[in-house]
Amino acid sequence: MIEESTTRTERFERGRAVLDAVDGESGERLVASLADIAPELGHQVISWAYGEVYARPGMPPRDRQLMTLGMLTALGDTGPELEVHIGAALNVGLSPDEIVEAFLHAVLYCGFPRAINAVTVAKKVFAERGLLPLGGAASAG
Amino acid sequence: MIEESTTRTERFERGRAVLDAVDGESGERLVASLADIAPELGHQVISWAYGEVYARPGMPPRDRQLMTLGMLTALGDTGPELEVHIGAALNVGLSPDEIVEAFLHAVLYCGFPRAINAVTVAKKVFAERGLLPLGGAASAG
Amino acid sequence: MIEESTTRTERFERGRAVLDAVDGESGERLVASLADIAPELGHQVISWAYGEVYARPGMPPRDRQLMTLGMLTALGDTGPELEVHIGAALNVGLSPDEIVEAFLHAVLYCGFPRAINAVTVAKKVFAERGLLPLGGAASAG
Amino acid sequence: MIEESTTRTERFERGRAVLDAVDGESGERLVASLADIAPELGHQVISWAYGEVYARPGMPPRDRQLMTLGMLTALGDTGPELEVHIGAALNVGLSPDEIVEAFLHAVLYCGFPRAINAVTVAKKVFAERGLLPLGGAASAG
Amino acid sequence: MIEESTTRTERFERGRAVLDAVDGESGERLVASLADIAPELGHQVISWAYGEVYARPGMPPRDRQLMTLGMLTALGDTGPELEVHIGAALNVGLSPDEIVEAFLHAVLYCGFPRAINAVTVAKKVFAERGLLPLGGAASAG
Amino acid sequence: MIEESTTRTERFERGRAVLDAVDGESGERLVASLADIAPELGHQVISWAYGEVYARPGMPPRDRQLMTLGMLTALGDTGPELEVHIGAALNVGLSPDEIVEAFLHAVLYCGFPRAINAVTVAKKVFAERGLLPLGGAASAG
Repeated sequence: MIEESTTRTERFERGRAVLDAVDGESGERLVASLADIAPELGHQVISWAYGEVYARPGMPPRDRQLMTLGMLTALGDTGPELEVHIGAALNVGLSPDEIVEAFLHAVLYCGFPRAINAVTVAKKVFAERGLLPLGGAASAG
Repeated sequence: MIEESTTRTERFERGRAVLDAVDGESGERLVASLADIAPELGHQVISWAYGEVYARPGMPPRDRQLMTLGMLTALGDTGPELEVHIGAALNVGLSPDEIVEAFLHAVLYCGFPRAINAVTVAKKVFAERGLLPLGGAASAG
Repeated sequence: MIEESTTRTERFERGRAVLDAVDGESGERLVASLADIAPELGHQVISWAYGEVYARPGMPPRDRQLMTLGMLTALGDTGPELEVHIGAALNVGLSPDEIVEAFLHAVLYCGFPRAINAVTVAKKVFAERGLLPLGGAASAG
Repeated sequence: MIEESTTRTERFERGRAVLDAVDGESGERLVASLADIAPELGHQVISWAYGEVYARPGMPPRDRQLMTLGMLTALGDTGPELEVHIGAALNVGLSPDEIVEAFLHAVLYCGFPRAINAVTVAKKVFAERGLLPLGGAASAG
Repeated sequence: MIEESTTRTERFERGRAVLDAVDGESGERLVASLADIAPELGHQVISWAYGEVYARPGMPPRDRQLMTLGMLTALGDTGPELEVHIGAALNVGLSPDEIVEAFLHAVLYCGFPRAINAVTVAKKVFAERGLLPLGGAASAG
Repeated sequence: MIEESTTRTERFERGRAVLDAVDGESGERLVASLADIAPELGHQVISWAYGEVYARPGMPPRDRQLMTLGMLTALGDTGPELEVHIGAALNVGLSPDEIVEAFLHAVLYCGFPRAINAVTVAKKVFAERGLLPLGGAASAG
């Protein structure tokens, strides 16, 4: 439990440091896209989501992304965020095969359509990183 | 409680009058797009949704749109309707800043992804009306 | 209750036979699109969804598609699958007018936005098959 | 297309007649439970949902209930309404076995949890009507 | 934009002050119920949801509750929170009639079942406060 | 890829063996509760969900439960299944603290209400196993 006194800016910077380890690039892109309409929302994503929640030591980054993939697959309507977090999942150590296995597992709880749609998003991310076909000699991203 | 005798056409016309105060143009566009496939659905949107429900005096148009923004943000998968109702919200007196604040508030109940996606739709609507950047010297729409 | 001994391949082939009666083409397309990323998911769609569930005699294909249209309309975020199953619904004997009536009925349980979005998908499918305008002299697909 | 002039009361009565063929008792109970808080909502369920939508000839009652079971299973959070409509489904000619088969079919699109929860509701309705065990010598309700 | 330096405890206290104006009692109850299992979650509800988001001046409490009622009605599965926020809505100036009207409006976007279920929750809250029947001589809560 | 020839009963037994390692007791209870109404659904949960999907080696049981907790939290309306899978998560090695941390993480993607409701279910499961208060000297269940 952090009891030191911090400024809003310091909390933002702490969030940015956490975010950088997960997916710094997409975080920057999000903040930039919100700058002219909802800068406070961009601030809170970094400062609170990453600086307060992701920063907690009780759950390693890989577990957080697995949990996140589960939630976004079930919500079903958050394709852009799923795309970001499939990338983040790769960044923190989930393999492409593990991600696909997670979506196959999702059939049991979300049904085929949402699982298939999640795989379709993964296919885009994996293709951009040169990871397809899985099991083959994937070229570097 | 309206006890006069009305025809189906009269009820449609009453709905159209109510709709015109909110977002007549998008209503006409919807009815037109349904004309060759589901004209009854188009009729009921105008006649019942606007003529029976929106027409009731117990809730001013601004409150109805705020409630509607909340519902569409939470549903998450109704982007086209959210776009229409962000426009309608502006038409009935919600400011762009109030709409963005509403979506920031939505993070608490719907999570970041659906709130961010709602802002993304707002960004499109605001841009078309020349309202961006917020807080700046927005040119007229 | 089937007690004969079957191989995985035999179960896949049984599923493909059932699928062919519903929408063989879109099934093949799905399996192909999953081949380089999630072949097991493609296998299970055919082998289990069609070979085990659709294959059961207790519900005729038309009823299965009606039930499926209801679910996909309510889920709201599964447009690609709704498109496939509107096509399948036509294939197994639901008329375009029945499908549109089903979506009008959906307003009661899912609200206008999801019903309208389902009709928008139907409009695309019907147009591709030359079925629009409904009630008019639709040319063959 | 109904072009005669009708009063609000006449439209309510038309809805009540349609409702009676589906599940008059649960309709009366709903209207009664809303009487001291939201009588207009009770009115619109009868007058519009039944009088305008259910009343349309393009979809027989059995098909409407099948579609409704699909939607309520997918929504997942509407147990009281699912209970009413499982009863209505029995009333308009769906057999207990067909209803259970529909929920098994639902696994494909909604996943196991929502399908199982729907069966749990069905179990309550079937038990109250003396229909369990299925396939056995069910005593009359 | 608050740039002063604050401690975690100060931010919690700021949230509690904001919460007290909305529904202090249910907030205390929530924090207490989370104390032995998820104290950090209880902390963040107060500190962040109320201290950071609700505290912002851009949206008056009545508007925040209206937006919240919309979201919770659409989510459908969050009855306990809807109950709290119907109480909060009353606390910040929405009348019982306005709340019921909001749920009638919700039929258009969420369908009848979720709107009816929301009214059922309202009926419980209103009854506890002695506000039923609406339009009658409600005794004090 | 399993190419040996198997009977339906053999596939069920394989599923039961996998289930036993996760949560055999709740699986037996589910099959028993479905026996008089939907035995095929009970069969498929064991035979397919556990025998075909859970049985795959590509994802360890702990990861499957974490993914499952994410999905069930996001679905929101599947409390009975969440209860079962919180128990299963404990069985396969997730600690109570990790489970609570996962639900705190869920706030970011699902909002506070669904996260709080998931913790409420966890509280029940943890209490039954004598695990509360967390961090304290939990007495045996």
